[in-house]
Formats: sequence, structure tokens, C-alpha cells
Amino acid sequence: MKPLFLLPILTCILSAAAQEAATSDPLASWNDGATKQAIVDFVERVTTKDSPDFVAPADRIAVFDNDGTLWSEQPMYVQLAFALDRIKAMAPDHPEWKTEQPFQAVLEGNFKAMAASGNEGLLKIIGATHAGMTNDQFAEIARDWFATAKHPKYDRPYTECVYQPMLELLAYLRANGFKTYIVSGGGIDLMRVFSEQVYGIPPEQVVGSSIELEYVEQDGVPTLIRKPQVAFIDDKAGKPVGIDRYIGRRPIAAFGNSDGDYEMLRYTTAGDGLRLGAIVHHTDDEREVAYDRDSHIGRLNKALDEAPERGFLLIDMKQDWRQVFPKK
Amino acid sequence: MKPLFLLPILTCILSAAAQEAATSDPLASWNDGATKQAIVDFVERVTTKDSPDFVAPADRIAVFDNDGTLWSEQPMYVQLAFALDRIKAMAPDHPEWKTEQPFQAVLEGNFKAMAASGNEGLLKIIGATHAGMTNDQFAEIARDWFATAKHPKYDRPYTECVYQPMLELLAYLRANGFKTYIVSGGGIDLMRVFSEQVYGIPPEQVVGSSIELEYVEQDGVPTLIRKPQVAFIDDKAGKPVGIDRYIGRRPIAAFGNSDGDYEMLRYTTAGDGLRLGAIVHHTDDEREVAYDRDSHIGRLNKALDEAPERGFLLIDMKQDWRQVFPKK
Repeated sequence: MKPLFLLPILTCILSAAAQEAATSDPLASWNDGATKQAIVDFVERVTTKDSPDFVAPADRIAVFDNDGTLWSEQPMYVQLAFALDRIKAMAPDHPEWKTEQPFQAVLEGNFKAMAASGNEGLLKIIGATHAGMTNDQFAEIARDWFATAKHPKYDRPYTECVYQPMLELLAYLRANGFKTYIVSGGGIDLMRVFSEQVYGIPPEQVVGSSIELEYVEQDGVPTLIRKPQVAFIDDKAGKPVGIDRYIGRRPIAAFGNSDGDYEMLRYTTAGDGLRLGAIVHHTDDEREVAYDRDSHIGRLNKALDEAPERGFLLIDMKQDWRQVFPKK
Repeated sequence: MKPLFLLPILTCILSAAAQEAATSDPLASWNDGATKQAIVDFVERVTTKDSPDFVAPADRIAVFDNDGTLWSEQPMYVQLAFALDRIKAMAPDHPEWKTEQPFQAVLEGNFKAMAASGNEGLLKIIGATHAGMTNDQFAEIARDWFATAKHPKYDRPYTECVYQPMLELLAYLRANGFKTYIVSGGGIDLMRVFSEQVYGIPPEQVVGSSIELEYVEQDGVPTLIRKPQVAFIDDKAGKPVGIDRYIGRRPIAAFGNSDGDYEMLRYTTAGDGLRLGAIVHHTDDEREVAYDRDSHIGRLNKALDEAPERGFLLIDMKQDWRQVFPKK
């Protein structure tokens, strides 16, 4: 047999091997380039035993903002969409809302009046939709909503409007001994109903904003009632506080997308040893939405300015992501 | 060779096997009896796949009170001993304390005057000893103290005045897929400096009382400053709240020792499926301290009364524990 006869077989074998390598790339939805390489380098350095940057598994804590970092936050925070839908669903039991702000504005779809009601209006909406029931009841309401509600632009469940590259990143970090946490300004209990199924992040690894809870016995059954008072705001300077309260260690990696994550990025990267602070930059107006400095939602200005000086890694959605959302 | 010649060898082998079995008992410091059996039965039922009581590993959450449940709380809470020692150590920098209560009382060892200063006095002591420094500085101070301070009665480090049977129980539960948490009225940051080393419980699985934290940049370095305001009291009805905020799941097993654990025990055992609520009853005046209904520290009255009705397992320290503290 002449050696040349072997060529097609060899090609076939090599091609299969290449395909195998491609499909086994844990970050397959990331385009090859400096950003992907920086992430892989960081992970390899902190997990290589002989590396001077080696970090023991117990200290491999990675924190992720949620809105705009793990899923879409445009055209409005998913939690706000949930609250507005709830107001509409509850309206038949509240005829007084027809003439009471901010409820009237919500029911009439009057966003201008809604905005005019300001923070006080928002707290009324949160109070009406997030409090006044047991924690278990709230979780059930939230699960029911996620099962049917759809994103207005992408026409698919909100839990599918998550970023495929970030899902891969979460899994990649966990496969390398990291413990992955959400640290979000969003309500902790709303995230906990889907975080495990969607992100592989169990409820005890979700840090978020919370309202007051009251322990009561209802008909002799111990339960927790949700109160219409804010207990903790896990945003901006609150993020490092939330990290310390819940996790008790300084993370070695943090991922955010807005100035709301600035303090978390700074706090994380200020620790000793090798650290990674990264920002998802929304640059893709075709597959998602391009926004940064002038956006009302997820404004990214200060953190963008300081990224070079602070060594924050910019993840350019348009350039670095082969795919944005999971395949349908 | 006559078969009888084999007997000594056989005896020797059997004896070695028996010894092996004895040392491999994960709960070796527990006397055989109904209490130990109840714990083992519970664990076997929730971990046996075909059992109707099977619980998925992710939901195997066990919560433990600390003071009086995992370590000695008599003659005073360890945290109070720490605070009083700190007042004495800091006194040279605070000449005004010589005539200022409750500091004067602490420096003069006047427990009556200390008690008379009440809750307000206690908050002043906490403020002076637990606040006004960064979180990292506090951890260092606490570690230094634990390295040298000794229990007045047992004359050994406080971190050795832990209950050997409970250490075994923690390890036994973890070996059976449980995630073990501390849920204590004690300060979260003091416990976190030793919980991993002593109990095998990492900082992120410690729930406790906390003071306010403030994120600041000190000379450009992001850090957390401890403020002299109480943020959360993780005691009594606060324990189920702390459990929900930090863990986000209802535990299936809870261990406490006082009425401060009553709500946690009730909340845990009120969940669906098989649950275990257990109380360490301090009955051993020889090896430790016997106390319950009339004690100022770790008062156990209501929970003791309701134990039969609620199905709480009473762990009788004198009767159920072969050994109390780890061997020196």
C-alpha cells in the first residue's frame, strides 16, 4: 500500500479530532482573541499548582452581577416587568388603583406618569407586588410568571434571554474549582427561583437586595411573611458589603457591566495576588442593544473610564461573542 | 496442624476487625442508645435512594447554633470574654474609661455594675471592641486573641472547648452529602475566623449577627469599615430570617440548645417530609455544666416543655456523650 493512500484516512481522523476539540471547547461561544485568552490565562494561572499565582480551591470565589451581565436588562429590568405584570394581574382585586398613582399609570401604560412617581412610586409597586405574602407564596407566584412571560423583543422566556458565553464561563469556572455567586442589585428571592436551573447557581450562592421578613406562626405553622420595607440594597457600595456579609471572603474574580458594579470590581481586584475584574460591554446593536455612558439602565461611564488604569478586562459583546443567546 | 492451633490467630484477627469497626464509627463519642440511633436513622432515611424520605443532596441543609450547641457558653459567651479582654488591652489608650461606664466596671471586674449598664452598656462595649476598624483588621485581632486566650475553667484555648460528639456529627452529616451551617446569635465575623479550621464550616456557611459595614477607599484601597450600629440580630425569631436570607432553603435538620433556637427548630421541622430538630441538653455538671430553665445564659425552658409535642430530639449530654471535649 502506498503511503499516499493513507492521506484521506488521516485527514478524516484529524478532522474528527479537530471537531472533537472544537465541541469540547468550554468557551465555544467566545471568539478566539485577547479577551478569551485573558480569561483562560487567569484561570490557568490560579489553578496551576506550581504557579506563583495558585489559589486554593476554597478561595476561588467568582462573583457575577446579574442584570446586563448574565441576562438582558433592556428595555427594562426583568424584575420591573414582573412587578408591572403583577399589578395588572392583581388590579381586579384593587378597584382603587384605577385612580391611585403609581398604579393608575401602570394600568394605563403611562410610562411618563410612572417615572414621575419616582422612588416613592417604585416602593409602592414593590410593596404591592413583592410583600404581603409568605416567602413560599412569592416563590410560587414568581415561578408561574417566569413560566409564561416573554421578553418583548426576543419573544422567548426571560430565562432564555441569558448570555450563552456567560453560561459557558460559569460552567468553566466551576469545572476549575470556582464557587460562582450572583451579586446583584435585583431582589434576592426573584433570582433564587430560577438561578439554579438557569445558571447552575444554588439559592445559597445568590446575593441580592432584600425586603424585611417577619417570622410568624400562621394557624400554628411557622412561616416568613414579606414586609413592605427595604432591608438591604445590594448595589454600588452595597455590593462589597453584601459580598462580605454573605460570602465572608474577598472574591478573586468579579464580572459586571455597569457603574453599579464599580465598587465590586474595585473591592475584588484590590485583594492580594492575581485578580480578575471584567466588564461586559454592550456593543452589539444587532444581536442585543448597544449602550453605555448615556443609558438610564445599566449606565457604564466611570468604570469604563477607569478600566485601563484599573486593569478591568473589557468584554466586547459584538467582537468577543460568537453567539449571544442560547440556541432556541 | 490441628484446627485448635488456629484459634489464637483467629481471635487476633477478629479482635483487630472489631477494633477497626469501633474506630471507624463516625459517631464514636456518642454512647449507643436511642439518641444516637435516632440521628443515624434520620440520616439513613433521607439518604437512601429507595426510601420515601429520600432528600436530594442539594436540599440536605443542616443548621447548628454555636454557643452551647457546638462549644461551651458557660460561664460567659466567648464573644463577651473576647470583648472584655479587648477593653483591658485597649485601656492604656483610653484613660477616660477609668471613670466611664461600662468601661470602668469592666476594668475593675465589677460584674454587678456591668450588668447594671444593661443593653446600652453592652452596645458601648461592642462598639468599642468590634467597630472602628476594617474587617481585615478585626479578623486579625480576633485570630490573635484566639491564639492565646484560654477558657477559665478548662484551661485550654476556646477553640478546644468544642464538643467532640458535635464535631463528629458535623463530619458525619457532610460525609452523607449534607451542607452544614452555623446559625448563631453570635457575631458573624468572630465565628468566621475559626469556623473552617475548628468545625470544617467555611465562612460562607456561617450565619450570625452583624454590625453595619461601610465601603470606603482608604488611601485609594477599597475596604470595609465596621460601624458601631447593629445591622442584624440572628437570634430567636431572627434565626429563620437569617436562614432564609443567607441560605434560601428551609433546612431539614436543626440543632440548638436554648430557647433562642426555638423558632429555628420550629421553622425547620415545619417543612414537608422527614425533618430533625434536636436540642443539646446540658445535664452534665461533672464534665461540663448542668443548666436549663433557670440559667441566664442559654436558658432552655419553652423548647424543653414543647420537645415531646414537637418531636424535638433531646440530646442528654451526660447520658448520650461518651466524651465531651476533644482529647488534649
